[in-house]
Amino acid sequence: MKSDLEIAQEVTLQPIALVAKNYGISEENLELYGKYKAKLSQSFCSAQEGKQKGKLILVTATNPTPLGEGKTTVSIGLNDALNRLGKKSIVALREPSLGPCFGVKGGAAGGGYAQVAPMEDINLHFTGDFHAITSANNLLAAVLDNHIHQGNALEINPKKILWKRCLDMNDRVLRNVIVGLGNQADGAMREDHFQITVASEIMAILCLAKDMKDLQERLDKIVVAYNKKGERVYAKDLECTGAMAVLLKDAMQPNLVQSLEGNLAIIHGGPFANIAHGCNSIRATKMGLALADFLVTEAGFGADLGAEKFFDIKCAAAGLTPSCAVIVTTLRTLKYYGGLPREEISKENREALEKGLENLEKHIENVKKFGVPAVVAVNRFATDTEGELSFLKDFCAQRGVRCAIMEAYGKGSEGGEELAKAVLETVEAGEVNFHTLQTPEQKISQKIELLAKEIYGADGVEYSNKAREELKKLEESCYSNLPICMAKTPYSLSDKPNLLGRPKNFRIEIRELSLSAGAGFVVCLAGDVMTMPGLPKEPAAKKIGFENEKIVGIF
Amino acid sequence: MKSDLEIAQEVTLQPIALVAKNYGISEENLELYGKYKAKLSQSFCSAQEGKQKGKLILVTATNPTPLGEGKTTVSIGLNDALNRLGKKSIVALREPSLGPCFGVKGGAAGGGYAQVAPMEDINLHFTGDFHAITSANNLLAAVLDNHIHQGNALEINPKKILWKRCLDMNDRVLRNVIVGLGNQADGAMREDHFQITVASEIMAILCLAKDMKDLQERLDKIVVAYNKKGERVYAKDLECTGAMAVLLKDAMQPNLVQSLEGNLAIIHGGPFANIAHGCNSIRATKMGLALADFLVTEAGFGADLGAEKFFDIKCAAAGLTPSCAVIVTTLRTLKYYGGLPREEISKENREALEKGLENLEKHIENVKKFGVPAVVAVNRFATDTEGELSFLKDFCAQRGVRCAIMEAYGKGSEGGEELAKAVLETVEAGEVNFHTLQTPEQKISQKIELLAKEIYGADGVEYSNKAREELKKLEESCYSNLPICMAKTPYSLSDKPNLLGRPKNFRIEIRELSLSAGAGFVVCLAGDVMTMPGLPKEPAAKKIGFENEKIVGIF
Repeated sequence: MKSDLEIAQEVTLQPIALVAKNYGISEENLELYGKYKAKLSQSFCSAQEGKQKGKLILVTATNPTPLGEGKTTVSIGLNDALNRLGKKSIVALREPSLGPCFGVKGGAAGGGYAQVAPMEDINLHFTGDFHAITSANNLLAAVLDNHIHQGNALEINPKKILWKRCLDMNDRVLRNVIVGLGNQADGAMREDHFQITVASEIMAILCLAKDMKDLQERLDKIVVAYNKKGERVYAKDLECTGAMAVLLKDAMQPNLVQSLEGNLAIIHGGPFANIAHGCNSIRATKMGLALADFLVTEAGFGADLGAEKFFDIKCAAAGLTPSCAVIVTTLRTLKYYGGLPREEISKENREALEKGLENLEKHIENVKKFGVPAVVAVNRFATDTEGELSFLKDFCAQRGVRCAIMEAYGKGSEGGEELAKAVLETVEAGEVNFHTLQTPEQKISQKIELLAKEIYGADGVEYSNKAREELKKLEESCYSNLPICMAKTPYSLSDKPNLLGRPKNFRIEIRELSLSAGAGFVVCLAGDVMTMPGLPKEPAAKKIGFENEKIVGIF
Repeated sequence: MKSDLEIAQEVTLQPIALVAKNYGISEENLELYGKYKAKLSQSFCSAQEGKQKGKLILVTATNPTPLGEGKTTVSIGLNDALNRLGKKSIVALREPSLGPCFGVKGGAAGGGYAQVAPMEDINLHFTGDFHAITSANNLLAAVLDNHIHQGNALEINPKKILWKRCLDMNDRVLRNVIVGLGNQADGAMREDHFQITVASEIMAILCLAKDMKDLQERLDKIVVAYNKKGERVYAKDLECTGAMAVLLKDAMQPNLVQSLEGNLAIIHGGPFANIAHGCNSIRATKMGLALADFLVTEAGFGADLGAEKFFDIKCAAAGLTPSCAVIVTTLRTLKYYGGLPREEISKENREALEKGLENLEKHIENVKKFGVPAVVAVNRFATDTEGELSFLKDFCAQRGVRCAIMEAYGKGSEGGEELAKAVLETVEAGEVNFHTLQTPEQKISQKIELLAKEIYGADGVEYSNKAREELKKLEESCYSNLPICMAKTPYSLSDKPNLLGRPKNFRIEIRELSLSAGAGFVVCLAGDVMTMPGLPKEPAAKKIGFENEKIVGIF
């Protein structure tokens, strides 16, 4: 069996300018980054404003498991298959983070014969967007600490600083640090925290900003601290948001690459899916919708988090209407939900499958609550039996949902045809009645309760004392109309990671609320959220290197 | 008077592929980064190995002052003027650092009509080289702390960790930090330090590495810590140097841009000039020497540090022979050395000028000690009088040294013709007898004494107890043959920043020695060296932003 990197390195890529030309983008509208990567120019992006005509296809999934469901692989394979069927389609994905690349996960550019390329570049620095975000994030932090050091005219309370530094690295010792040790000249001492770059509010802002003007306004609105009177201090007050916008100017432009089959992929932005909304940039999605008849995109985690945020935050902010949501799952995953230990999930087990299907059923119901028709994609593994597959198909048919077997990992676009046809039929049936669940009129507590009951299937919501106080403050503020962004475990529909399948009789516990005023949402923390991962005992970095002048170890 | 940015923005740049073509580089050998920046492909660089035929011109200076001498501007202007005179010439410069750009200094891409462009890009992320170095540096740090957290099989002594984290930012509170606070899962607590990226040993390594193989070997050799037995722990022991090399693969390729007059400039690497050698990469310099008849390059600080390191470290490592050294100075600077306060340096003052010339004289003598002929370049200011200029010219003529007035800042290449002609005459005279001062056979203490007496004009060397111990250890080690890299104040020939002119009767005090085994030198600290700058009360970042969709505030 070849590795993803080996498969990718065997393909002769087309110059990206040629790929772009097939979609009506002339070379003068590209900023090339080598031969196989490009950014769309700012003037081209501006010119596409309002031209969005394509159909928007969301790829989401059942709750993620350690087994891997292959959402990115399905997205790329579906796009290749739509092109194979003669449709003009583009896939829009998130940019991978360096941290996980050197940690456990390896790369994040699809798999098998459904990959985007050049995958080494995409997984490493790509076009430098994340580095630009790191720089802008840390410029704000440096200016803040410098402001305090130089006399603290804004009377920032050093115990109430919200803004954190960041690095695109899995580095657990930076979670909690003390900065400013040393002498008077070395600044004011305080506790600080580093996040991984994808958790920076600037990442969410970049992905939600419509244009440079919107970006600037969102940067200005970031709440960085409280002053000694307890009032909010904004990034704008520190007078460095102009420089931050300048640092982000290239990062704002969507990146073009190609799939191994030579179809266009836009890869742009990659916010966390817990404390942020987990989708690629609005600009990338809109660009795809302007340039093609179909735009396939994915959202982070399972549909309870990813699809909900895609609908309630991203589509709401961008005024987008999705045409169809593909829910990716695997037989192995369903049996795992059904209670089977990992060793047994490759064996046939109708009982476990049936029980696990409750999870899929809930996600189908959830997607329909937004007025979006669902298609189930079963990412096929070699051990899947025909009996189980047809059982799953019957299950979906009984619920009026199309279900397709997806084999793009092993077969490329040919293996994606069944899913592409199911998607096309669904879109042509036109059963869309899209609406968000969250609305600006709802109070924050109503939005939280709505998600808890409607999406997670909880009986209600519990608040910690801290959360209750923060809720009160926020509901009395000008931020009460913002959507909420739930940060809960992705592994369960509930807020308890070990409650698999379709849990019942539980309440969602909200520990903390925090404001991302620049991004434009209120983060609700239902559980511990790690915003700076650590490296495992054997980091993937150990396997990465050169062999015979070729990169090895990225997968 | 127009700002540098305004002048730069008025020029219509040529596509970089066209500029490169004039130097025999076809587009297939370029990795474009937008239309006006490119990297040379690895295969092209490899093919140039051994083809270096051009003459190497070093631009150095008298000791730097707060007034600015304009070394980069002179380098760019000289190159433009050589091209104007029909010579095929390329200029090789260091990449600017983001830290100073947002701090005091603004940009670093020349000035007036002698600039490289696009200066906004060059001053910001450019082609991402510094970000790649930051990533590689911090991957090593994360893997080191992870190693300790996961059981510390190498028995690293947490009190003897030498490797520091880095960021390309002026951020004083990161100079001294405690990392690893929190719980057991948050890693081991210890004191740590951030440097600015240009101070990372990886920056020096990248600039001294001949090729990817050499890079890998140098990364392997980095000493990151001591173990509990007091033995050195190397980066290789942490098994992440392959991943570091992969992160650095694009950063190893020289970057092409153009001057405002459309002549080729290679901008690549930018190590500190105190704890490192302060020159652009060996690869960039060699590339220029292979592609043109002249390669103009600069070294950091004044000739006592910059030129010495250029000769003893860079030329020695690369096997390069310089043909001529241009020593940049200004009348204002010379009068400042002569004891005039800043308010009076623009007025004629023969006495101060005469006294200040002692500094220039010493630098001329120093350059000659390496067997390299010197040319003095007087970077002209509007207040300079003809009387003073001819006094300076006579002074140089009496010492058999050509002297040229340089006006490229205000007039572009036309203003650089006098200097270009002086350089051409000097090169054609062929009075080169190049040899390094430092040699591998000398003991480390001999090398230190040699520089102290021969270059700085000191009576001798004093060692702190700490330095004496380190010296002993190093002289007994396999590292005793490495060149030394002096980290002393650039503002004086001595190690006391306030001793201007040509100080006498002083001894150099060595406080500390430290090994940069990957870079391949021993750093001698004669004084405090700041490797993480801070922001000033009014950071330049405050003025940077967009106005009418154009960047403003970078200068």
